[in-house]
Amino acid sequence: MLDTPKHADQHIPGAIPATPIRAMRAEGTRVAVDLADGGSAKLSTRWLRLACECELCGDTASGKRWLTPADVGKTVHAESFDLSTPGQVSAIWQDGHVSRYDAAALASHFDGSGPIRFQPRLWSSDLSGQLGRFAFDAVVADDAALFASLRALRDHGIAMLTGVPAEAEATARVAGRYGPIRETSYGKVFDLISRPDARVAGETARAQIPHTDEPFRYSPPGFIFFHAIRTGAGSGGTSLMVDGFHVAELMRTHSPELFDLLTRHGVTFHREHSGEVFFSAEAHVFSLDAAGAVTGIRFNDRCLAPQSAPLDRIDDLTEALAELTRLIRDPQNQFQHQLQPGEVLVFDNQRVLHGRTEFDPTLAVRHLRSCNIDRDGVHSAFRSLARRFAPEEAEAVLYQGAIF
Amino acid sequence: MLDTPKHADQHIPGAIPATPIRAMRAEGTRVAVDLADGGSAKLSTRWLRLACECELCGDTASGKRWLTPADVGKTVHAESFDLSTPGQVSAIWQDGHVSRYDAAALASHFDGSGPIRFQPRLWSSDLSGQLGRFAFDAVVADDAALFASLRALRDHGIAMLTGVPAEAEATARVAGRYGPIRETSYGKVFDLISRPDARVAGETARAQIPHTDEPFRYSPPGFIFFHAIRTGAGSGGTSLMVDGFHVAELMRTHSPELFDLLTRHGVTFHREHSGEVFFSAEAHVFSLDAAGAVTGIRFNDRCLAPQSAPLDRIDDLTEALAELTRLIRDPQNQFQHQLQPGEVLVFDNQRVLHGRTEFDPTLAVRHLRSCNIDRDGVHSAFRSLARRFAPEEAEAVLYQGAIF
Repeated sequence: MLDTPKHADQHIPGAIPATPIRAMRAEGTRVAVDLADGGSAKLSTRWLRLACECELCGDTASGKRWLTPADVGKTVHAESFDLSTPGQVSAIWQDGHVSRYDAAALASHFDGSGPIRFQPRLWSSDLSGQLGRFAFDAVVADDAALFASLRALRDHGIAMLTGVPAEAEATARVAGRYGPIRETSYGKVFDLISRPDARVAGETARAQIPHTDEPFRYSPPGFIFFHAIRTGAGSGGTSLMVDGFHVAELMRTHSPELFDLLTRHGVTFHREHSGEVFFSAEAHVFSLDAAGAVTGIRFNDRCLAPQSAPLDRIDDLTEALAELTRLIRDPQNQFQHQLQPGEVLVFDNQRVLHGRTEFDPTLAVRHLRSCNIDRDGVHSAFRSLARRFAPEEAEAVLYQGAIF
Repeated sequence: MLDTPKHADQHIPGAIPATPIRAMRAEGTRVAVDLADGGSAKLSTRWLRLACECELCGDTASGKRWLTPADVGKTVHAESFDLSTPGQVSAIWQDGHVSRYDAAALASHFDGSGPIRFQPRLWSSDLSGQLGRFAFDAVVADDAALFASLRALRDHGIAMLTGVPAEAEATARVAGRYGPIRETSYGKVFDLISRPDARVAGETARAQIPHTDEPFRYSPPGFIFFHAIRTGAGSGGTSLMVDGFHVAELMRTHSPELFDLLTRHGVTFHREHSGEVFFSAEAHVFSLDAAGAVTGIRFNDRCLAPQSAPLDRIDDLTEALAELTRLIRDPQNQFQHQLQPGEVLVFDNQRVLHGRTEFDPTLAVRHLRSCNIDRDGVHSAFRSLARRFAPEEAEAVLYQGAIF
């Protein structure tokens, strides 16, 4: 986002002064930059020409863009630079085209420094003290409260909404604040009620090892909302939540070879109901970004197909899946919470695993309402509100999820 | 899928005889297999125990699964094997548990042979002769016709539906056969009508370089349906379709270093409408599977943010994006087609790029109706129908899309 008028008043935070550039000069394929603090930097000339977002070149953020990478040749050359306007840099190109850049935005690209990557906060059984709790009325009515809860979801991958009316309509009303609700084969907002002979395991009363939902999809569900309508206190069914990023780091530390295998060997998850659906995805259990940080997890031991691997790798793969299952089952890694009517638990299904203890369906009816919102919808809501409430956080790269 | 009753009648196709196994014996962590054809094979003992899907262990395809990887130790041991039932193998384990396997299904895992991966058929400007055309009436009423069109979509990533009534309801009726229609911020089925001052480039009359839609999402749209209602013949607006897998292979052949860069350096695509949405994804332009085959592409030159890369890589990255843009623009790689009212063009947005020539909106109104279906929904429909119409194709790993 360079030279985009709507962001001209937003400067990169930190140590960079408002006008960090003292002089610029062309050096062939590079532009040499003298900094106000006495240092120096380089930019690629071709990159700089492509970074122009004037009206003729068009704006990449809106998609009304007319200059393409193929339109800027390797020999592009700047005739001169103009730094006379504070906070702004102009380049005059060989063909007479003039590009204007916000100096601070340009400075964030000096020497090809990479983007700022958000660092999530990991948690284990001790989540309770850090768990963000947000009142329904505030989140529904107030963008600042909504933003605070979005920030908690970014930090911990989980947050609690309280005081939510036990009405069907309230689930959609509050969830819709976080992004467009995704319609699934069960509908937009669907009921999870304990009853015998249920077709999916989530509707039976047996205990469930914490898992991510639908790892057999190419793109599993994003944020999941669990709205407790009736929970039957005393009959079991305690929620067990696990930070997948935390258990991933435990594996990376204690079993680096097994961790590594789960980042590069595709594991197959499947789901088939004869004549109805047949999903199958071959994916990494742990996804890493360019810096090696975990960006997502997909795992449900109940959906693991018989795996394919060379004979000299299959036992290590099995041990990796066994070790991960043990870590997920370990109460030290589980935040345990008995949902109360009026609470909505929101969590990132590509980071946080959810399960529950068994419960006795003859003692009480257990009724949750649930819906999903795509991760990029929630992150879009976060970034848009960050422009208003915390501009320095708006452009950080967020962890992108359980990708392949 | 081993020992799952509903598949017991389905044998792996090819050279494997119906009962390929003559004898099995335990050899520590391995099970040695003597084959009917005189050959031999090995299986992992631990893998074999985990592959049991009896009622006690549970069924991984339905998710009603009770045995976990952590429940099978490294020292698990088979006491004996029973091959007396034709087409079936039984293992009796040290704890007395008995597992039964379909012999042919087991044979597909001998020596850790990998899964069968579907090989797509590539195309360029010559698509016309191969393009699958399917009548609306048949696809709506007949599962065999639907399956034929799903197979065409798998093979070429594109197919044409003909004789579709120019009614709003018809778009959803035919698209819904391929999977649940995904609701977007524009609605489920939305109109693309040329008009001035449109906010997104797709609604203006300018030419569009072929692109994939919404590469700035973590998971871009899957299959896109374009239903032509009015097209204004003679006024321009010819559809330009490009097989992303074909241009990827051209790059791999002619510019292997540039191709390689687009498979491992994350490129940032973004979309921001101030106060409304702010999407950003850092992703590989070309996604590869474990065998190095291209499984997906995401690219829209108009949504490329100013890229981040080390100074010694940024010019190669720019050249890679420029070369890809040139290949996409090259008429030799474009299938050109003037959509006619009653036609629906369906294509895989994570494989096929779509664009159009400019058109004169003062000459005629141009009206398309469009909707999206997730890729895993369409692939689920394909696999489910393949169980009926082409069982040998049901379990192949399909190309999984434009992943990170």
